[in-house]
Amino acid sequence: MTYKITALPGDGIGPEILEGSIEILEALAKKFEFEYDLVTKDFGGIAIDKHGEPLPPETLEACQNSDAILLGAVGGPKWTNPKNRPEHGLLGIRKSLKLFANIRPTIVTEATAHLSPLKESLVKDTDFIIVRELTGGLYFGEPKYFNENQAVDTLTYTTEEITRIAHIAFKLALKRKNVVTSVDKENVLSSSKLWRQTLEQVSKEYPDVTLNHLLVDACSMHLITNPKQFDVIVTENLFGDILSDEASVIPGSLGLSPSASFGESGPSLYEPIHGSAPDIAGQNKANPSGMLLSLAMCIRESLHQPECAQHLENIVFNTINEGIATKDLGGSYSTSEVFEAIKKSI
Amino acid sequence: MTYKITALPGDGIGPEILEGSIEILEALAKKFEFEYDLVTKDFGGIAIDKHGEPLPPETLEACQNSDAILLGAVGGPKWTNPKNRPEHGLLGIRKSLKLFANIRPTIVTEATAHLSPLKESLVKDTDFIIVRELTGGLYFGEPKYFNENQAVDTLTYTTEEITRIAHIAFKLALKRKNVVTSVDKENVLSSSKLWRQTLEQVSKEYPDVTLNHLLVDACSMHLITNPKQFDVIVTENLFGDILSDEASVIPGSLGLSPSASFGESGPSLYEPIHGSAPDIAGQNKANPSGMLLSLAMCIRESLHQPECAQHLENIVFNTINEGIATKDLGGSYSTSEVFEAIKKSI
Ligand SMILES: CC(C)[C@H](C(=O)O)[C@@H](O)C(=O)O
Ligand SMILES: CC(C)[C@H](C(=O)O)[C@@H](O)C(=O)O
Repeated sequence: MTYKITALPGDGIGPEILEGSIEILEALAKKFEFEYDLVTKDFGGIAIDKHGEPLPPETLEACQNSDAILLGAVGGPKWTNPKNRPEHGLLGIRKSLKLFANIRPTIVTEATAHLSPLKESLVKDTDFIIVRELTGGLYFGEPKYFNENQAVDTLTYTTEEITRIAHIAFKLALKRKNVVTSVDKENVLSSSKLWRQTLEQVSKEYPDVTLNHLLVDACSMHLITNPKQFDVIVTENLFGDILSDEASVIPGSLGLSPSASFGESGPSLYEPIHGSAPDIAGQNKANPSGMLLSLAMCIRESLHQPECAQHLENIVFNTINEGIATKDLGGSYSTSEVFEAIKKSI
Repeated sequence: MTYKITALPGDGIGPEILEGSIEILEALAKKFEFEYDLVTKDFGGIAIDKHGEPLPPETLEACQNSDAILLGAVGGPKWTNPKNRPEHGLLGIRKSLKLFANIRPTIVTEATAHLSPLKESLVKDTDFIIVRELTGGLYFGEPKYFNENQAVDTLTYTTEEITRIAHIAFKLALKRKNVVTSVDKENVLSSSKLWRQTLEQVSKEYPDVTLNHLLVDACSMHLITNPKQFDVIVTENLFGDILSDEASVIPGSLGLSPSASFGESGPSLYEPIHGSAPDIAGQNKANPSGMLLSLAMCIRESLHQPECAQHLENIVFNTINEGIATKDLGGSYSTSEVFEAIKKSI
């Protein structure tokens, strides 16, 4: 079976980190003897420039016909029309492909713990995953409008949507340390009351997993004061956006964190947590680790090559350990030099 | 003129930190020769126990007839009825008294910088204020309900509400470093689009103040990676809840941070950021600093005794500097011992 991959380089540093990663994928496929078809499509700002919209029909169709999507990054100061933003492409692709589960691991390794803004003793051995609901909540609820007098956004969740994401979190915890922390604002929001009660309900099907509840404001503190306490965190869309970005700086650089988004069936999407970093775009400075670790998630989950994925993850961290790293990690290597080193290690 | 103060000890550690602080206020009033009337009322969980509701009419009336309200903390595991929570008292008092502006300073002093979960070099000299809108947004918008199938919360803001809080932020910045950072989620939320455009509008009246915009997810990172960059942060209710709690751990202990809430006229409310900490309640262990620094804000803003306020702030920090501190600050003193030491220094 030949898997189909759609590559969406996007904007800013997106193309440089994705192109290099595709070469790594080629080398890995040779070594581990698997095949894939890859097409590259316009997405984000570049698609606005070339086709007038961030998610052109041709791009969406290619994605729909894929097993996996590799995304670089989108956005930049160039695209200022509030009605036609690169980011809208991201929201559109999530919604169209029903990518409701966003998985964001935070892992602190030996090699970068000292780079964390937090004290090394606090972050060492941190290893948790944030499961963010990605197609509900304030991002998509209607009514949603503004005029010169007032604005409205709507936060909606159905029990079905909450149940679905809860199962993802519990299943993940079963493969890990058996602890789920559900984050909500139950003392204020109706949606959080339904969220909490649904999580309790679903937890009955997972007697081996401990379910804890934490308020979102408290969680924003705990992530800093004691990140090691977490195993799997599950939360709604906007809370997940804020908390996963907060978590992403814990390992020492935003450039390290990968993410994956899954639907109930159909293609999955893999992208680094970081954005398009227009300030360093085209300068061969970007840290490719977040993209490469996203590729590793893709190889494991969509191409079903767990050994290959593990091999890639080991190489990425070993390379950093050896000091072959970009500036954000305290190194002096360029993006392409890091890719070279990784290719050699394959 | 004799100012009227209503004291609301509340639950958990609330009574112990507030009673001691009232004695400090007595001593300060003697030294600085001012007068006040103080009444104490039931509020929060204790009011549910005694009157069946967290904000009894008598309590609200006393608050309405005051110049200032001193609040300890509310809540605890004892009150589990989701329809009748101690926290509802807090939301009720904010709404009834139209306390739309919540001011939360984050200051890192010499004495506690080493206790921060962040690296000392990153946090030293941090000094910013979060201005949180407190009576709008998802907390109060309608419709707001849930049933067994779905839930809805509504995020509404009027231009008037945004304008009002923007002025508070700009005026504060004029007295400080002239920088306002407005935090929103403009790439997704309609309310944030109106927020950003209104902030731009109001900023025209403050040509000496620089206005920056930051997305809430990015802000949650910046607070950790570079807290020194901020002067005045202004944001909507829920973002302010999350970000100010995140910020509150930066100085080394949650027990250090004060807050003040203002309306357009009428009484102001002063309370520490921390909660009721039921796990240590009644054990004479609670750090009274957050309450005392809230009292200092009250003395400055509502009793109009700036020298007295400064004196109290100096004493609080000097006492910590001298090592007379509770366990959360690495000390071995009890709550009452800290109060004793502070009283002696007056
Ligand atoms: C670009 C933006 C719409 C997006 C989000 O808020 O989901 C981004 O911040 C993310 O976390 O992937
Ligand atoms: C208790 C709760 C309703 C409250 C809030 O969310 O506003 C608290 O977290 C706070 O920040 O004062």
